[in-house]
Amino acid sequence: MRTYLDCIPCIIRQSLDSVRFMTSDESVQERVLREVLKATAEIDLKQSPPEMAQWIHRRIRFHVAQADPYREVKDQFNQMALELFPAMKAWVEESGNPMETAVRLAIAGNVIDFGVNSRLTTDQVTASVKHSLSDALEGDIDHFDAAVSSAERILYLTDNAGEIVFDRLLIEQLPRGHVTVAVRSYPIINDATMLDAATAGITEWAPVIGNGSDAPGTILSDCSEEFLDHFEHSDLIISKGQGNYETLCDVERSIYFLLKVKCAVIARDIGCAMGSLVLRHHQGTFQE
Amino acid sequence: MRTYLDCIPCIIRQSLDSVRFMTSDESVQERVLREVLKATAEIDLKQSPPEMAQWIHRRIRFHVAQADPYREVKDQFNQMALELFPAMKAWVEESGNPMETAVRLAIAGNVIDFGVNSRLTTDQVTASVKHSLSDALEGDIDHFDAAVSSAERILYLTDNAGEIVFDRLLIEQLPRGHVTVAVRSYPIINDATMLDAATAGITEWAPVIGNGSDAPGTILSDCSEEFLDHFEHSDLIISKGQGNYETLCDVERSIYFLLKVKCAVIARDIGCAMGSLVLRHHQGTFQE
Repeated sequence: MRTYLDCIPCIIRQSLDSVRFMTSDESVQERVLREVLKATAEIDLKQSPPEMAQWIHRRIRFHVAQADPYREVKDQFNQMALELFPAMKAWVEESGNPMETAVRLAIAGNVIDFGVNSRLTTDQVTASVKHSLSDALEGDIDHFDAAVSSAERILYLTDNAGEIVFDRLLIEQLPRGHVTVAVRSYPIINDATMLDAATAGITEWAPVIGNGSDAPGTILSDCSEEFLDHFEHSDLIISKGQGNYETLCDVERSIYFLLKVKCAVIARDIGCAMGSLVLRHHQGTFQE
Repeated sequence: MRTYLDCIPCIIRQSLDSVRFMTSDESVQERVLREVLKATAEIDLKQSPPEMAQWIHRRIRFHVAQADPYREVKDQFNQMALELFPAMKAWVEESGNPMETAVRLAIAGNVIDFGVNSRLTTDQVTASVKHSLSDALEGDIDHFDAAVSSAERILYLTDNAGEIVFDRLLIEQLPRGHVTVAVRSYPIINDATMLDAATAGITEWAPVIGNGSDAPGTILSDCSEEFLDHFEHSDLIISKGQGNYETLCDVERSIYFLLKVKCAVIARDIGCAMGSLVLRHHQGTFQE
């Protein structure tokens, strides 16, 4: 997805939120904001928003001299999600449709997004969980279920820490031995890395790989050969969150996008209301 | 008031809103947005937000090749306010405290601000009028009343078209012959100019002067000598709206600021909640 003009004020606001999240030093906040404004004045609107976000967060990490400034909130939301996990696991198992319940909860966890909301509270997460069980699901769960059943190789693209614990509910519904899970290779906002996959208990269940990148999405040109090999040779890709959607929605692969709609531009692009729980099949056709 | 870092994302968003209000040509929208981003990267944060807005709207008017792009909505909201005027005038006259009712209604009219909200509806205006009669007034009406009674020369700084019809209610409560009313000399957003003062019927009641400027506020260094003479020699200044507050709140004069709080930065600066009706006395002390 390209960057829309509407994304620009949001990018500026998110940059300010992010740098404030990491430092109370106003001179650093101002320096970063001016750098972002200058860079955004020259932005290539054909690139997806996560490409700009990648650049911005590299600059912020440079200025605040921290490699992983969101580590603390990532731990905090992993812990919070792990506390909810046993109850949610029971809901899935006792549900009339465990796959649907797992999909709904995995999407509920997508609310844990510090790129969109750097002041997220645990109350907002529990509210998201609660609503996810009764709100409309924009997508065809039977179609998804059938695609999972017939797939030989499934690649599951995670999004954020905390959320990755919710993903475990869905990953455990997939055919064991057929699934590879991908995380970001390097810290970016609160996106999940290998440490989060291990904390969530996913490394014990399926092979987990880094994607080679520090972008808050999946920019294929920035990913490792190992990741691209999995991406090319999987017959089903399950992609979590807005950042992965923004970077992969124009790619010619069969992808299921699972996300909670958290911005007006994506709502318009997908054709769903803000807050929607989305399970969207994207059937890319290969053009040789 | 200086420009806070929080103002920056808002300036970018307002610029996009404004250029979209004036043209549907996306290439013009993009060009203006890039110019604003570039200029904002170099912004002097010691200047007030209206100084940046003045520059931005000059650029927008240049690109859309229109001298007064808000003329149509200015006419529309003048007309709307004139239709409400007889009823509001009766409320003032029948009120137990006509000065207070006129102050409340004048502040209610300050909702007509296309700088803050370019999608304002007439329903929002009538809701503002309704609430203004019962909401708390943050200020001392008796103190204001006494200041009016003892003043020899009063200068009334108007803000927006439409709103200026509401101002007439208050201006008619001031001692006739002692009041001069000021408007912007040149079009800027939906700020009132001489034409709006005439449409509101104010030119028949008091002398009206232009302030010499096309800023959405009162930047003294940008004002005419005639205006500055009135500003210096009036013993009471009544200032309407956020833009006049932002540009005059650090000036050493006795000023009553009447405004509706429409942004979080001003709310924090004034120490009132968003949406508040404010009658704030600012007693500047001359330092020689």
